Amino acid sequence: MKNNAEVSKATVDRLPLYFRTLRQVQSEGIDIISSEELGRRIGVTPEQIRKDLASFGEFGKKGVGYFVRELIRNISEILGLHRNWNIAIIGVGHLGWALANYRSLNSIGFTVAALLDADSAKIGQRVNGIEVSDMSDLEQVIKDQDIHIGVITVPANVAQQTAERLVAAGVRGIWNFAPVVLKVPDDIRLVSEDLSVGLSSISYYLSRVARE
Amino acid sequence: MKNNAEVSKATVDRLPLYFRTLRQVQSEGIDIISSEELGRRIGVTPEQIRKDLASFGEFGKKGVGYFVRELIRNISEILGLHRNWNIAIIGVGHLGWALANYRSLNSIGFTVAALLDADSAKIGQRVNGIEVSDMSDLEQVIKDQDIHIGVITVPANVAQQTAERLVAAGVRGIWNFAPVVLKVPDDIRLVSEDLSVGLSSISYYLSRVARE
Repeated sequence: MKNNAEVSKATVDRLPLYFRTLRQVQSEGIDIISSEELGRRIGVTPEQIRKDLASFGEFGKKGVGYFVRELIRNISEILGLHRNWNIAIIGVGHLGWALANYRSLNSIGFTVAALLDADSAKIGQRVNGIEVSDMSDLEQVIKDQDIHIGVITVPANVAQQTAERLVAAGVRGIWNFAPVVLKVPDDIRLVSEDLSVGLSSISYYLSRVARE
Repeated sequence: MKNNAEVSKATVDRLPLYFRTLRQVQSEGIDIISSEELGRRIGVTPEQIRKDLASFGEFGKKGVGYFVRELIRNISEILGLHRNWNIAIIGVGHLGWALANYRSLNSIGFTVAALLDADSAKIGQRVNGIEVSDMSDLEQVIKDQDIHIGVITVPANVAQQTAERLVAAGVRGIWNFAPVVLKVPDDIRLVSEDLSVGLSSISYYLSRVARE
């Protein structure tokens, strides 16, 4: 497998979709799939799929297609999903609760190993089998549960301090849902989700259709 | 303003971030901002900002910067946020509930005008002032509330049929959170959120750091 640091973010972002679709294909009992059929299911061109996968090495056989099981294993390795990543969700409001129950995360190799909240009414409750811990124990919980990735679903005004505590406690990745721009050290991998982006994108295209 | 259909999706996806950051800047009482300072706050280069905005026309004044209020109004118009978009959330589980309460949506011009669920225990409840309607009344609710965009937060196995009902009822955009690839007519704007993408991206980069 190539270890190409130049692979684009867009390619990396498409891989989970390939992964999920291939698992669906596998569950239908299909062993081999063409880039045309895979592209049709995902909604990208076969050329795009071939190009994306070629960034990482040679997969599939010309005129035959991709071996589904093999490609799933390869993408899983590329994405690092064959490892066991422990994640902690900080802030058990509705969004944190939804993420704790989001089955796709579990199915691709992430384990929600800890939930934390500052609200005494929530501490001690169980969500999907995990007890909600007290925010003031954050550092201890991160160590005890060997947490690699922290998920920030706290209110915006405490998001930065939460990120700093997570970094100091040893997490290496942060997945942020608070609508603020967080500052973290360069060696911490930060991905921020902005839920208004998707909706704004719809608004943008609908406005233009209406204008034309 | 240019009406350039060639503007990249990446540019369109960055605009909401500019918009939100500029509103923050405005709330701090700042009237003029340089692309350097704006870039620093957002985490992109000043060149990127200038390039993105140049896709739509001429903004800002060389050597002075961007007039904050004017740029906010311009980006709002580009994104179609100055219109009033009514959205309906289909499926009031934790994720639907979280979205109904997600303040950023309201603050940028989307109105959650309807909530629907099939669960009789939820029908009639109020979330953020909106009563949950019965899924079987979907077509009527879409018409009565003049819904433009449907948000799909139902389980994966009923997502496609939900999308079809929304389209038949007249919505023009669909924001999908169910982990399935939906088929909709070409004139419907579909944006699918895959919450596992962000986490997989973190996993990808952490794996590579660990390997090097």
